[in-house]
Amino acid sequence: MIKAAIIGATGYTGSELVRILGLHPEVDIKAITSESHAGKKFSEIHPQFLGLCDVELISTDDLQAEELDVLFLALPHGVSMEYVQKLEGYDLKIIDLSGDYRLSSPQVYEAWYQKTHSHTSAFDRAVYGLPELHKTSIVTSNLVANPGCFPTGSILALAPLFAENMTDSSVVIIDAKTGVTGAGIKASATTHFSNANDNFKAYGLKHHRHTIEIEEQLSALKGSGVQVQFTPHLLPVDRGILSTIYVKPEGSTNEKTLKDLYHSFYKDAPFVRMRTDMPDLKNVRATNFCDLHVTFDDRTGNILLISAIDNLVKGAAGQAVHNMNLQFDLKETMGLQTYPIKP
Amino acid sequence: MIKAAIIGATGYTGSELVRILGLHPEVDIKAITSESHAGKKFSEIHPQFLGLCDVELISTDDLQAEELDVLFLALPHGVSMEYVQKLEGYDLKIIDLSGDYRLSSPQVYEAWYQKTHSHTSAFDRAVYGLPELHKTSIVTSNLVANPGCFPTGSILALAPLFAENMTDSSVVIIDAKTGVTGAGIKASATTHFSNANDNFKAYGLKHHRHTIEIEEQLSALKGSGVQVQFTPHLLPVDRGILSTIYVKPEGSTNEKTLKDLYHSFYKDAPFVRMRTDMPDLKNVRATNFCDLHVTFDDRTGNILLISAIDNLVKGAAGQAVHNMNLQFDLKETMGLQTYPIKP
Amino acid sequence: MIKAAIIGATGYTGSELVRILGLHPEVDIKAITSESHAGKKFSEIHPQFLGLCDVELISTDDLQAEELDVLFLALPHGVSMEYVQKLEGYDLKIIDLSGDYRLSSPQVYEAWYQKTHSHTSAFDRAVYGLPELHKTSIVTSNLVANPGCFPTGSILALAPLFAENMTDSSVVIIDAKTGVTGAGIKASATTHFSNANDNFKAYGLKHHRHTIEIEEQLSALKGSGVQVQFTPHLLPVDRGILSTIYVKPEGSTNEKTLKDLYHSFYKDAPFVRMRTDMPDLKNVRATNFCDLHVTFDDRTGNILLISAIDNLVKGAAGQAVHNMNLQFDLKETMGLQTYPIKP
Amino acid sequence: MIKAAIIGATGYTGSELVRILGLHPEVDIKAITSESHAGKKFSEIHPQFLGLCDVELISTDDLQAEELDVLFLALPHGVSMEYVQKLEGYDLKIIDLSGDYRLSSPQVYEAWYQKTHSHTSAFDRAVYGLPELHKTSIVTSNLVANPGCFPTGSILALAPLFAENMTDSSVVIIDAKTGVTGAGIKASATTHFSNANDNFKAYGLKHHRHTIEIEEQLSALKGSGVQVQFTPHLLPVDRGILSTIYVKPEGSTNEKTLKDLYHSFYKDAPFVRMRTDMPDLKNVRATNFCDLHVTFDDRTGNILLISAIDNLVKGAAGQAVHNMNLQFDLKETMGLQTYPIKP
Repeated sequence: MIKAAIIGATGYTGSELVRILGLHPEVDIKAITSESHAGKKFSEIHPQFLGLCDVELISTDDLQAEELDVLFLALPHGVSMEYVQKLEGYDLKIIDLSGDYRLSSPQVYEAWYQKTHSHTSAFDRAVYGLPELHKTSIVTSNLVANPGCFPTGSILALAPLFAENMTDSSVVIIDAKTGVTGAGIKASATTHFSNANDNFKAYGLKHHRHTIEIEEQLSALKGSGVQVQFTPHLLPVDRGILSTIYVKPEGSTNEKTLKDLYHSFYKDAPFVRMRTDMPDLKNVRATNFCDLHVTFDDRTGNILLISAIDNLVKGAAGQAVHNMNLQFDLKETMGLQTYPIKP
Repeated sequence: MIKAAIIGATGYTGSELVRILGLHPEVDIKAITSESHAGKKFSEIHPQFLGLCDVELISTDDLQAEELDVLFLALPHGVSMEYVQKLEGYDLKIIDLSGDYRLSSPQVYEAWYQKTHSHTSAFDRAVYGLPELHKTSIVTSNLVANPGCFPTGSILALAPLFAENMTDSSVVIIDAKTGVTGAGIKASATTHFSNANDNFKAYGLKHHRHTIEIEEQLSALKGSGVQVQFTPHLLPVDRGILSTIYVKPEGSTNEKTLKDLYHSFYKDAPFVRMRTDMPDLKNVRATNFCDLHVTFDDRTGNILLISAIDNLVKGAAGQAVHNMNLQFDLKETMGLQTYPIKP
Repeated sequence: MIKAAIIGATGYTGSELVRILGLHPEVDIKAITSESHAGKKFSEIHPQFLGLCDVELISTDDLQAEELDVLFLALPHGVSMEYVQKLEGYDLKIIDLSGDYRLSSPQVYEAWYQKTHSHTSAFDRAVYGLPELHKTSIVTSNLVANPGCFPTGSILALAPLFAENMTDSSVVIIDAKTGVTGAGIKASATTHFSNANDNFKAYGLKHHRHTIEIEEQLSALKGSGVQVQFTPHLLPVDRGILSTIYVKPEGSTNEKTLKDLYHSFYKDAPFVRMRTDMPDLKNVRATNFCDLHVTFDDRTGNILLISAIDNLVKGAAGQAVHNMNLQFDLKETMGLQTYPIKP
Repeated sequence: MIKAAIIGATGYTGSELVRILGLHPEVDIKAITSESHAGKKFSEIHPQFLGLCDVELISTDDLQAEELDVLFLALPHGVSMEYVQKLEGYDLKIIDLSGDYRLSSPQVYEAWYQKTHSHTSAFDRAVYGLPELHKTSIVTSNLVANPGCFPTGSILALAPLFAENMTDSSVVIIDAKTGVTGAGIKASATTHFSNANDNFKAYGLKHHRHTIEIEEQLSALKGSGVQVQFTPHLLPVDRGILSTIYVKPEGSTNEKTLKDLYHSFYKDAPFVRMRTDMPDLKNVRATNFCDLHVTFDDRTGNILLISAIDNLVKGAAGQAVHNMNLQFDLKETMGLQTYPIKP
């Protein structure tokens, strides 16, 4: 059994990790930490776990790191880097769910996160944990930077086009819509029921941090710089991100070429489902799937892409477990073969 | 024109008062106060009012009370009493939307609110502002205690039975369900979208403060002590309270007797609508109506009552304006003749 | 492996059965039938199953009943009885999720369902499939009548009191609130988004069919006739039933006595969770749990009970699988050990 | 008083017309028609109107057209044209809320609606009823084609740019999101609560009929052909359309130039509100406002536009009343000066 610890278990990413790892056949959760709730039971913080996970939360200081195989960091960006640094000497795998190691360099990080990075030496070894693109590097990595929720859906939708140089990249428009859990478990005006319910709005125009994460991954695929226009919106739903993406093809293309490309590109990806009907959030809810739809508009000459994921699973905890499976040479889908909860 | 001020405009009760008074043909809003946001525009706090109410918020200290006719206090209980006390010398009408003057005595207040009352002398002159029961006292009152949201719907449903001594009062069960605006505008775990959305739960079992408010009003109608079992629940909706109420009749009764009683009791009440179909929240949304349904179960011998109100209108701001209309000898329905927003 | 078929797979009960049985380690789904959609793939009807269950739906006429071990009937009441009758000769277990065999006699059925029962001979052998009360009969039964969704939550809340004769039963008030999936997958005015969303109402007052189902089970426990006042309401949520229940104790009682009783009564029930905090719908979502809260109001002398279940799982498909586990001598919780999806 | 009739009052457009016209100081609703519900009261179909509009619905055949001043047609496209044709001889104003007269020619209509137009002679005199662009023609028109809900929000967002030739029009991407009332009052799989709730998806990709309506209006402003990529999505909310729009400027531009342009273009438009904060659906709910936000992304060189309307008011009934006000030389805003319902 793999001995795992979850650092920072009071958020939604933490509770999803327990939900998934708690039923994973090869994992034993050895510790769950929380600085603010140490001493309380996990099920006091997340009452759905009553009788299922009543383990006592500990401070990270009391962690026996030497007895662990893998550590999931479910911490805010800026905080995560401190823990990664502290744990450098131990022989264990780290899967960091924050944004601290996702970008190409400390300089890029500092420009977009407006924060100094205190652990710049780790950039070289951190691997961007999107299994559909970086499986071989993940397998041998000790530090996986689990992708952001928006980038996961957007990059998976666009990767085939950029890998095959099929877009002119002058126009890449990503209109993304997320459920409220994307804003975290902490109560705020944004997450206040009567602000979000029966409502809808855009936010973070032009400057959202996930923009650069998407651009860097697409640029790497294309071999040259890519710019995207990324606009997130807040949906009155709990979970899920649906992204509608508009791109111009390089030269001419058609529906069949595109569909063939996508089926071929993702033929070995167990969690990408190509759909001919419209993806929706409930089709992927509580699963690690990314549902994709691709189509070409003959009239306008635009390629239209739609991707749907569960932001807490494929966009966070599920993808983290997928990465763990790869790192420990387990079946890729182990512990993740659940069916969507719909309705 | 009636010169009005709204004290404490940053909550939902405050914004509803502006929504209603702003279109009232006989009212001029002279001032809106906020201690936390003085200096900002009202529409910065409630952005739906952009271009409609961009007035600058002032501190209550800067209020010219001598130039006002009526004051609406939209403050938390405990805070309201301070302002009422301060304003004692002025010749103006006060409509207090808090719980500070709704109960029969400081002793009862202190027992249920677990708080000392600092303005006990006003209890004698405060009138409970439920126009369907206390119209004549409201007309001449300078201090109206605007009823609580739950009590409004519950008392209106039960008043005819208690006024006519048609219930044995051994069993009065009020199972009430409220929208999330009932918890106020302040972000909290309770109002956090992902806690409330697609969810439902009871709260405040056995000890909710509105219990005593209902009991006192029903006891007054009956002429002897009444106990109710009041259980509020939190609905994943913005507005509205629906209460399902169970009572035993005194002796025998039947459907027709009950329906006749209710039609007769409320024949002159412009905001009570007797329904033969099921009341629902949207039928009263954004209006001052209380929709009522009464029926008798021959099989079990129970009387069933259902009432529906908009907690922010009939349960707060609308009823306050109704009270003001009475105090200033205006047409009862003035400024309140809006149609429900449905869907 | 147990060879199972699901009859009538186009509703929510059908899709939940596939969701649960598809991951059950000891079950092989051999056939899924639909008269209206025979020839189509299951995932065309329920698109969340794309790639997970793409099996072709067949007509029930094409079923090879002799090759099956167990049959789940997910059909409307009135239709189910025809199929049970047809299948009488085969050596297989039937779990019927309709209301056709839940009541004590054809006469009672006909009075409450206003429909002639065409298969009255089966009443003797049908067992009411509430495992917490009838485990020993279920184990040996070939025909399990899976309980209704409302009765499941209500009976589990009340059973200890009636089994121990701790209520005077003069007042049993069940105020129940269900998610919209309780109304089925067929579009109707009731299930129309803009009617249900941000809204709430009661329905089926005084005459809902589940009333008699609850009364019969409680009467059996008590040994004498019990009447309940059962009022369902429609919540703007997908899944879940929360019932708030009011009873008078027989003689005196107190909080501790009640809590002890419940813990003792359910100590071996893997799916009943006694909670000290408030049950809510998301705490049980997508699981087979029934969360219960019991308390005594010293002031009024009433016992208050709250139960929460997922109507599609503990209220339908999950309980059906629990019954199957019992019939086939498997671990009770097999295939049902999932964690709640929250948020 | 203007004598008005509403043809086809059983949908949401019909009920909104009654909600607005019922309180309009210069309008008397003389008749409301419904072929399917003639003989019933209006409030039986729309129960929120109990006591407010209990008028009996009549068949359109029983309409006394010669006694009317204005007729609102709230009918499906294809049906509307029959009534307009029948009423040709009468001296009254017609405001048609369907799509039958919105396009430039019967040929364009037939290409996009895939339906023969039976009243082609009226195209010459029909005026596109978007007051912000066509006020002078509306004033003198007898046949106003009330704009579609999506086009209203999109055209208002884009009109200044196209009128001033400030976009190169190579890329016009309209990513629109609508509430479920946009799909009408009839129950369907699309409007089924459990399909729409907590969910989100795109629909009508590449071929939605509102595409051509937007393109024709923008082309007229620009003086040459414009193509748009229009993608609608279904939000789990009742009311409202929010559109996020991406355009390339012609040559260079900047934030200030754009903001100045919009303020100037809409300085006399009482229902367009320029916002510096993010538009949202509740800020305009139950009002005739169109809230607009415009910004320029220096990094990518794209112009971003966001518009929010209430699809049933500014997108239908409110705009129709605005048109009527213009036709009858009333104050533009008469009957439409309501405040948003938020929350």
